[in-house]
Amino acid sequence: MGDRNTILMESIKRLLRRNAVPHLRKIVAKTHAADLSRIFNSLSLTEQLKLFSLIQDIEQKGILFSELEEDTLLPFVEALKIEDVVAIFEDMPTDDVADIIGKLPEETSDAILRKMRTEGSEEIEGLLRYEDDTAGGIMVPDFIALSEDVTAGEAIKSLQKEHQDVEMPFYLYVINEYGNLVGVSSLRQLVVVLPETPLKDFMVTDVFSVKTDMDQEEVAKIVARYDILAVPVVDETNKLVGIVTVDDVIDIFRREATEDILKMAGVGEDFVETKSVIKSTRIRLPWLFASCLGGIVAFFVIGYFEESLRKLTYLAAFIPVIMGMGGNIGTQSSTIVVRGLATGRIDTGELWPVVFKELSIGLILGLVYGLLIGFVAQLKYSTIMLAIAVASSVICSMSVAALVGSLVPMLFAKIEIDPAVATGPFVTTAIDIISVFFYFAIATSLLGI
Amino acid sequence: MGDRNTILMESIKRLLRRNAVPHLRKIVAKTHAADLSRIFNSLSLTEQLKLFSLIQDIEQKGILFSELEEDTLLPFVEALKIEDVVAIFEDMPTDDVADIIGKLPEETSDAILRKMRTEGSEEIEGLLRYEDDTAGGIMVPDFIALSEDVTAGEAIKSLQKEHQDVEMPFYLYVINEYGNLVGVSSLRQLVVVLPETPLKDFMVTDVFSVKTDMDQEEVAKIVARYDILAVPVVDETNKLVGIVTVDDVIDIFRREATEDILKMAGVGEDFVETKSVIKSTRIRLPWLFASCLGGIVAFFVIGYFEESLRKLTYLAAFIPVIMGMGGNIGTQSSTIVVRGLATGRIDTGELWPVVFKELSIGLILGLVYGLLIGFVAQLKYSTIMLAIAVASSVICSMSVAALVGSLVPMLFAKIEIDPAVATGPFVTTAIDIISVFFYFAIATSLLGI
Repeated sequence: MGDRNTILMESIKRLLRRNAVPHLRKIVAKTHAADLSRIFNSLSLTEQLKLFSLIQDIEQKGILFSELEEDTLLPFVEALKIEDVVAIFEDMPTDDVADIIGKLPEETSDAILRKMRTEGSEEIEGLLRYEDDTAGGIMVPDFIALSEDVTAGEAIKSLQKEHQDVEMPFYLYVINEYGNLVGVSSLRQLVVVLPETPLKDFMVTDVFSVKTDMDQEEVAKIVARYDILAVPVVDETNKLVGIVTVDDVIDIFRREATEDILKMAGVGEDFVETKSVIKSTRIRLPWLFASCLGGIVAFFVIGYFEESLRKLTYLAAFIPVIMGMGGNIGTQSSTIVVRGLATGRIDTGELWPVVFKELSIGLILGLVYGLLIGFVAQLKYSTIMLAIAVASSVICSMSVAALVGSLVPMLFAKIEIDPAVATGPFVTTAIDIISVFFYFAIATSLLGI
Repeated sequence: MGDRNTILMESIKRLLRRNAVPHLRKIVAKTHAADLSRIFNSLSLTEQLKLFSLIQDIEQKGILFSELEEDTLLPFVEALKIEDVVAIFEDMPTDDVADIIGKLPEETSDAILRKMRTEGSEEIEGLLRYEDDTAGGIMVPDFIALSEDVTAGEAIKSLQKEHQDVEMPFYLYVINEYGNLVGVSSLRQLVVVLPETPLKDFMVTDVFSVKTDMDQEEVAKIVARYDILAVPVVDETNKLVGIVTVDDVIDIFRREATEDILKMAGVGEDFVETKSVIKSTRIRLPWLFASCLGGIVAFFVIGYFEESLRKLTYLAAFIPVIMGMGGNIGTQSSTIVVRGLATGRIDTGELWPVVFKELSIGLILGLVYGLLIGFVAQLKYSTIMLAIAVASSVICSMSVAALVGSLVPMLFAKIEIDPAVATGPFVTTAIDIISVFFYFAIATSLLGI
């Protein structure tokens, strides 16, 4: 895939330079908007406008809008004529439009909403009321809802006349007179039963639904767990107001996984590689500060033991191995807990069993590697007390690291702070300081210095 | 969600102890098999068998089979009567059955395949020919394929009679006389057009398809990029042989993200938290060995500079901060590269631009933190050459870390080795050693010791 896109990008750039309009128009018409969006990111604004003007199909323009990254999209939308933007928006799924409008400067977004047809702009303003990362923020307000007395035949007719815009017309939701969700059926069922059968005779009444304020990650987990293509969203009064579709669920999982990975590594939560060196540096700078501060604390800890170190210089040689072992097992523990919580394999209710298990593993692995490293120390310096001090420090450092690495994210999850943030630089830094302190405290007392 | 499941589990366990069969049967009938599977993991085999015998619906049993984790499922299947397993398998989607059969001991799987209806067992044996993690390994062989002269009305009739087993009956694939894929339409289109319209008049001829040997991650990316619900799979002769559905795509993305995260943290690639302490320890042990070996190398590096260290003991105090800064920026760089490659934001073709960018960021951040830490050194020891040595070491260590952290995974991806494995313990350990060496080399030469 990568190579195909690189070749495509090279030829589009070359044709743009040559201004080969008919050739470009042909390529653009044949290329899926999702692939065009990749190419857009690496074009200048002038090139983007040129290429965009060659897209004939308004739906393709809409998909391109949905696929572009924020950094590319916003300046591009502002550079287009407002009438063109409105025409494209009116053809796009409402949730995608709401997403973009929510990110535009108020002036631009107001101007766009004023120019849109009333129905569309009302739907969008309705969606903008919900938080971005909740069921309400990601749902589409277009769905098929019929009353339970409608027959299969009538339902098919209504599909032929209306509901042309519905993004995922596979489920038919059944609502009562108050708009409350009472059942669900599928397009497939419609064609299988006799045309005169009313929906209430074949609908499934046991429907999963989610509230508008449910976190998007929870919504995604429900869709994944029950293998459904869309989940209905209801408001406080149980009225059906939208659906969240499986394509959005895929995006949520991918985005949340990326966010978690980046947070754990201490690089913010947005993907920074596509940003400029300066932006990227600015995002990464503060996260490293935790580690810098930790290092300075460790520096003062060692400074405190300077006298002992002067007597037994070789103590310094064990600092890296003790810090490294603690740091690595701590990362293991916190990664397992963070990912376990994200995928639902670990529950916040299991705090003590999980932490206790990690502590046991830390102790066992600490014993194994403590003995190994102690043995190396004995080989090199033939001082049994030093070997014992080094071994005990590794055991201490690794057990504490496993404890801290699992406890901190579990506690954060319990008080509903994102556990991924807790990991990464903060946990690692805390473990560094604790390891160094334990090591010198144990060594000085065992060696009597 | 978590709490609801915990409560459910507690009451099921209590009722099992009391042997409250009618009550249990009611709960089981009301609980989705995906939720039952969670509970199953924490029951003993006897309890599992008991609970399982209370499930009335064979489809629910099938979903439970699909949802159970390997460690729970395999001993459980072996404990069941072979006739029962066969009956459940015959009701399940073929790809899920093939998945399970492929993992069972050959004796058991042969016995099961012999007892299944010929058609089903042939389909499964067909699927078993493909690698687990390819399009062929994850596809379902049940799909709707019609010839292009079939009319919409005839297509609807055929849906009513056959294709009852099709897992995702939303797309209708159109094939020619040789079984080659020539077009696609949707159930929705069928009910919208006039019944006498032939498929060729309204089918879309521009169909994405994938080959049986395409890696599952690539397949998943295609489904996600083009927002489709299923992608058709063709064999070497372009014959349509199956489809990969969106629910499997979600599972692939989640599993691949988990794998990448675990590999980067050096904890294998399977989720270990649900395994026993001993198993878990065994998986984590070898990954820590890299870090241990690295620590021992760093130990000898420092040992080499022992004479200098004896003269200026305080040099030791800067080891943690220099190692920490290098380690953290290295983790940032490698995480960005690994995740960028996984999500397609970075291409292996961009090796030098990416590495050069990371190196620039490493240099800038190195300058910032080098000056800061050098300043602290100056405050504490008022030795300008020491401050310069510390500052330059931080700059060196951070730039080299950014370089190594981005270069190693990029190179691995280029030679098609999983870049996630390259990260974690290996990169961190290499950076530790390099940092410590640079620091002492710079300090001893600048301070003339």
